[in-house]
This record gives sequence, C-alpha cells and structure tokens, in this order.
Amino acid sequence: MAQQEQRIGRYALLLALSEENDPIVMDQKNVKSCVGKVGTMDSQKIVAAIETAAKSNGLINGNVYREVHALYHAILEAIQGVTRGHLQLSGILRTVGLRFAVVRGAPYRNKEEGDWIAVALYGTIGAPIKGSEHESAGLGINHI
Amino acid sequence: MAQQEQRIGRYALLLALSEENDPIVMDQKNVKSCVGKVGTMDSQKIVAAIETAAKSNGLINGNVYREVHALYHAILEAIQGVTRGHLQLSGILRTVGLRFAVVRGAPYRNKEEGDWIAVALYGTIGAPIKGSEHESAGLGINHI
Amino acid sequence: MAQQEQRIGRYALLLALSEENDPIVMDQKNVKSCVGKVGTMDSQKIVAAIETAAKSNGLINGNVYREVHALYHAILEAIQGVTRGHLQLSGILRTVGLRFAVVRGAPYRNKEEGDWIAVALYGTIGAPIKGSEHESAGLGINHI
Amino acid sequence: MAQQEQRIGRYALLLALSEENDPIVMDQKNVKSCVGKVGTMDSQKIVAAIETAAKSNGLINGNVYREVHALYHAILEAIQGVTRGHLQLSGILRTVGLRFAVVRGAPYRNKEEGDWIAVALYGTIGAPIKGSEHESAGLGINHI
Amino acid sequence: MAQQEQRIGRYALLLALSEENDPIVMDQKNVKSCVGKVGTMDSQKIVAAIETAAKSNGLINGNVYREVHALYHAILEAIQGVTRGHLQLSGILRTVGLRFAVVRGAPYRNKEEGDWIAVALYGTIGAPIKGSEHESAGLGINHI
Amino acid sequence: MAQQEQRIGRYALLLALSEENDPIVMDQKNVKSCVGKVGTMDSQKIVAAIETAAKSNGLINGNVYREVHALYHAILEAIQGVTRGHLQLSGILRTVGLRFAVVRGAPYRNKEEGDWIAVALYGTIGAPIKGSEHESAGLGINHI
Ligand SMILES: [Mg+2]
Ligand SMILES: [Mg+2]
Ligand SMILES: [Mg+2]
Ligand SMILES: [Mg+2]
Ligand SMILES: [Mg+2]
Ligand SMILES: [Mg+2]
Repeated sequence: MAQQEQRIGRYALLLALSEENDPIVMDQKNVKSCVGKVGTMDSQKIVAAIETAAKSNGLINGNVYREVHALYHAILEAIQGVTRGHLQLSGILRTVGLRFAVVRGAPYRNKEEGDWIAVALYGTIGAPIKGSEHESAGLGINHI
Repeated sequence: MAQQEQRIGRYALLLALSEENDPIVMDQKNVKSCVGKVGTMDSQKIVAAIETAAKSNGLINGNVYREVHALYHAILEAIQGVTRGHLQLSGILRTVGLRFAVVRGAPYRNKEEGDWIAVALYGTIGAPIKGSEHESAGLGINHI
Repeated sequence: MAQQEQRIGRYALLLALSEENDPIVMDQKNVKSCVGKVGTMDSQKIVAAIETAAKSNGLINGNVYREVHALYHAILEAIQGVTRGHLQLSGILRTVGLRFAVVRGAPYRNKEEGDWIAVALYGTIGAPIKGSEHESAGLGINHI
Repeated sequence: MAQQEQRIGRYALLLALSEENDPIVMDQKNVKSCVGKVGTMDSQKIVAAIETAAKSNGLINGNVYREVHALYHAILEAIQGVTRGHLQLSGILRTVGLRFAVVRGAPYRNKEEGDWIAVALYGTIGAPIKGSEHESAGLGINHI
Repeated sequence: MAQQEQRIGRYALLLALSEENDPIVMDQKNVKSCVGKVGTMDSQKIVAAIETAAKSNGLINGNVYREVHALYHAILEAIQGVTRGHLQLSGILRTVGLRFAVVRGAPYRNKEEGDWIAVALYGTIGAPIKGSEHESAGLGINHI
Repeated sequence: MAQQEQRIGRYALLLALSEENDPIVMDQKNVKSCVGKVGTMDSQKIVAAIETAAKSNGLINGNVYREVHALYHAILEAIQGVTRGHLQLSGILRTVGLRFAVVRGAPYRNKEEGDWIAVALYGTIGAPIKGSEHESAGLGINHI
C-alpha cells in the first residue's frame, strides 16, 4: 500500500526544533510550511495561534471546513504530546512556551493519497515561574 | 530559578529523528545517550526495549529503583505523545515502528538541579498493513 | 461557511437503532451505507468488523490509506462513546454486543466539502453474564 | 439474570434525534421523559441544563442526593460520547449545539432492578464559527 | 440536603490500610464490610476479586444487576486512583499488590438516601521486579 | 532490590484521614510532614495550596526545580484519584472539600534510594450544594 516518500512529520519537528542560534540543516521540497511561537496558560490559544498561522500562510483554506477540521485534529494530537494525558494548562497551574511548525505535503508515493498535514510543537512546560519548566513536544498528523 | 543550559529533550528528539541516509548534525557535550529501535503491537515491549537499552548503556543504574522509576515515567510520557490519548496498540488494531533515544544530562545551570532524563520516540503508527501508517512522535522528561 | 444539507451521523445512528421487529422509518438519498453486528470482549474486533464491512460494501477504498485512516479515527471516536473514558473491554471485565452502521455521504451544501464518513454504534455493554448489561452508543464523524 | 424489556437508552436517543420537521415515530410506555436544548462552549452548562430539566419535569427528586448522583454520572457519560476523550469545549476552542433527552423507566423484567435513567445527546460540535461543525452524540445510563 | 452521618469511604480506606502487625483502631456500626488481597498484572483480576468477595460476603446481591452495576463503577473509580490516568497494568509493564476493602452502609442522615457502597484499594504498584514498586491507593463510591 | 522500610504513602493517607474528633493513632519516625485543607471548584487551587504548604513547612526547597517538579507530579497523581478520569471540577459543575497531607521520607532500606514524597487527599466531591457530595481520596508518590 501507501509507501512514504516524504516525511512531513519529521520535517515539521525539525522546523520546530530549529533555532536561529542553533539551526538545523534541512532540505524539503514540494511542501508548504510555516512556523510560529505561542506562550500561554490557555490551551485554546495554542489552537488559535496555529490555525491563524496556517490560514494566513495559505496552508489551509479557512473557508473549507474539511481543511479546518483536518488541521484541528492534528493540533489536538500535537497538544496531547505536550500535555501528556490531560489538556489542561492553567487548570493545573502550568504554562507553556512553544515553537510550532505546520507542514502540508503529499507524503505518499501513490498520488491518490493526496495531501496530509503535520503539526509539531516543541518548547517548555512548567510552573508559571521562570525556569521552573522542562522541555515538551508533540506531533499530530492528518489527511486533509 | 533554574535556567536551562542544555536541552536534553531537543537532543533526544534529534537523535530519534536522525538516520544513516539523512543524518542530523548535532553537537552535545556532557550527556550520556543511547538509541534503539522497536516495532510492536504491544506497548509493554516499548517500555521493555527502552529500559533494557538505558540499563545496558549505563544511562541508569538498574539496581536503584528511583532511577528505574524516573525512566519509567519519562517513557510513559513519551508513549502518550505517540498514542495520543489511549495507550493501546493491538487493543485498537494498530502497530508502531519506532526509533527511540534516551539522554541523561544536567540541563540546568544550577548544579543543585542535578541529572534529568529525556526519552524521545519517532516513527510510524498505523494499521498492521505495510504502508497504512503515518508518523508519530513523543517526548518524556523527568528528574532522576 | 459550510451549511449542512444531510445529516449522515443522524442517519447512521438511526440505522444502528433500527431493528427488524422495531423498524425506524428513514429516507436518506445519495449516501452509501452498511450495517452489521459485533459481540466481543476485545475492542480490536470492533475495529476489524467495521473496517471489513465498510471495505466489502464499497464505502471506502481499502487500497487508499487516507480512506482507511479517515474511517479508523471515526471508529475510535464511536468506540469512545460506548466505553466512556477507557477503551478496555476484557481488561476491565466487560463485554459488548453492538449493532454498527457506517454512512458515507456529502453532508455540506458546499461541494468543496466533499465526502464525510459516520460510524454509529448501539447495543449493550456489561459484565460477561447474560443480562448484566445496559445500553451504550457512540458516534464518530470524519472527513474522507 | 436481568432481561431487558424496555430500552430507555434507545428511546432517549430517538427523542434526541427527533425533530419537528423530521419526526421519528416512537411509542414507549411507562417511562418519564423530557427533552431540551443547550448551546454552549462551557461543558458546565450542559450539566446544569440537563439537571434543571430533569428536576423541573419530575424525572428526579432534586432533594435526594442519590437521584442527583445517578443523573450526574449519566450526564458525564453522555458528554464523553460528544467530546470523545477530553471534556473541554472552550478550552480547546470548540462549541456544541445539542438537543438532549432524559428518560427514566424500569428497563428490566425483574422488578427488583428498579428504575434506571438514560441521558442522550445529539447535535453538533465544532469551531465557534457557524457551519464549521459536525454531528456528535452520546448516551449515558445509570441505575437510580 | 443530605448530611453525612457515616463515612463509609473513610472506613473502607482504614480497613485497606490496616494490617495485622500495624492495626488501626476503628469503630464503625451498622455497615457491612469485607477485605481481601489481590496481586496481579491484569486489571480484570482486580475487578473479579472484589466482585467475588462482595458477593460471597453478602455485601451485594449478585442476582440483581443494579447492585452489580453499582459495585462495578465503584471498583473502576478505585482502580483509577491506583493507576492514575490509564487502566493498563501488564500493558505498560507494571504489576500491583493490593489490599482491598468493600463497605456498604447508609452514610446520609436522610434515610431516603439509602445504601451506598465504598471500595478502597491500598498497596503497591511497580515494575514486575520485587522492590521496584511504590505505594498506591484508590477510593470509589456509588449509590446502590 | 529496594525493600520498603517506611510507608510514607500510608502515613500520608492516615494523616489526611485523621481528624480532631476522630484521631488515628500513628507513630512515624524520620519523616517530615504537613497537613492542610482546601475547598474549591478550581483544581489549580488544590495544586497551589499543597505546593505552598510543602514549601513553607520545609518539605521541599522551592528554589530547586527538581523538588518542585517531583511534588507537582505527586500532586497530579493524587488529584487523579479524587477526580477519577477527568481533572475538571467547575468545568463539570463539581466542587471539592479536601484535607491534604504531604510526607517526605526515605522509604527504602537501601539508602541510595534517597528521599521520596507522598501526597494524600481525602474529603468530599460533589455538586456545589451542601450535602450533595460523597467521599473521595487520592495518593501520589514520587522520588525527589
Ligand atoms: Mg491518525
Ligand atoms: Mg514533568
Ligand atoms: Mg472532529
Ligand atoms: Mg455502567
Ligand atoms: Mg460519584
Ligand atoms: Mg510512579
């Protein structure tokens, strides 16, 4: 069945992990991508920040619900990696500082598989006190 | 409070994402690390494979329960990123093929913070049919 | 945005709730659907039974992973309604007897929204003793 | 053991699925029932709307905690079918528009089994943008 | 509303915590109770052991499903305290050694509140290696 | 491996269960402990109350993140016993009145195992109406 040609999840993770003062060399063709940052105690704001970035960068068509729906579930899956079991942030007195990346591409060799979307998150999670935090990451993938 | 000097989680993720035919250039000092692979429908085997690798590579002392306990919770957190909500694999007819990395280091500038351990997972999850799978990843961090 | 014209989830639920000796009158055009039954203590078998029925009735193309993936997540969502919090059946000493329905159609007026799939489950859950059970239901929806 | 004579869950689901312009023909004797609607981003309001309706329609005695407790857990189970894995609505930027039905009856032939209560939910869940939503449903059952 | 006169949950916990060589002095009237032990990697066996003890000690009538159902949900709630987030034991390579207590009584002053049941668990959870374990506990309460 | 000499979890539970008008006789040496109370519909406040008590009573060093992190995860585990499946309180219209105890000690005979921390919770959970509540408890344990 579907053989993978491109790893959009891996590329999204590397984008999220890359930084100006510690860049990761990557070369990925034929994908659309965007990156951004969000720091919040409110998981709603993570969803909103990623949706806004993906729409304004043309990764999804915000007027087509199936694209919004595909991205939404990919975001939720990525947040679960960050929060590990419960989605709450402020509700259990924790905050996140995350870099996110969204990648849209056609990862499978068989062209019928169409486009898929990857959402990667990397940053810190911890108490709302500077430094009382450790790293965290998540990855969500969906067909779009 | 605790400022981070080293990002053991980021390093573990990069180790898990690196591959012979697509290596990621990394430079990380003063940490212990190991990598391995596990393909299974049984999440128990993911736990066992990582624990065995971490013990045999000297990342944890298998005779001290607090080290085993620290690693165990880091593994569970990483698996939650891969499984996103429910730990079951075969129980809901899915299988994983994962590359894992374990990193032990002292990520905080303040030496009282001591050692921490990071477990990163990257690979595929999907139906037990070749190609019916997509990427997945997880990261767990704990003090040790 | 996307206005709904057809409610494939409602139709799937009614198909799952309908029975020979207590039929529900329904009229739904332009959808593909199938129904079936599964009784098991193993949630893996619910997934397999629905996937098999959907493929053999031509609701999804089993050779295209994006269709399998769409159905898979819809099934998982429906099972969560039945199990309410934890997916385990035998693991916590319970069993199900379910009637399932799968419906594929284009629920939104805007044709760009394309096809969506609904999985409905209705039946009983309880102890593995005849009669020690109560009703249960679930619904999963996904774009395909 | 307890053979079922009445299916209060099925009846509750049909009440929740029935609508003025698409009524479902049902005939159920010897049960008490009520229906209502709730649209909200706050899951607390779903609980409150159903509890209020059940009390004011005489389905439960609001002065007896065991009745309130029985209904409460049935509501939570139904909400889990709607939210599939996490109870948050606004917390993950989603909203619901639900029709609910509560049914109280004696579903088992053995009169010692006494009264049970069913809570059914049916409607839509999605982004807080008109049309960016799909169907959702849930069913909770408890002894009372 | 319902004022509590008896704390069956506290009594159940004390029974589970009491031991021959470190007994806890308790005095509780007008309740039925039983205690037992279960050591397993299979959460199904915890359920079975407690159900069997409660039936054979006359705490519930095993022929009446509403009593079985009430106990079952109390057991699940107690197990969640022990497993903290996921019910799996062997599935994530862990095992438990538990002492359990079941108490049935009428905790509320208002006699209409009737009987309630408490299930308490106390013991150890950990790796399947002697000593690689720490304490764990849980409490479930239900109306019956 | 690690044999237990002291049961800090049991001691924490007994402290949480003890009350002025119904004291439990206990004798525990070589541990640090504190107790307190918190009544709230906001799980964040449970975390904050316990962290504040543990810091101000010298059970943890609030300036060392590894100690804060160890306590935080123990608190979350204990809250899971109280909330059984979902952390929300006000979000699903419920409130708690809890007595908490924190105990720090060296439970294992092998001194390399070092210090561990136990968090116990006991009290009531229920609707925000006096008396519409039942007992609840939780225990979390972590190496520190
Ligand atoms: Mg998937
Ligand atoms: Mg942590
Ligand atoms: Mg959806
Ligand atoms: Mg039930
Ligand atoms: Mg309750
Ligand atoms: Mg532990």
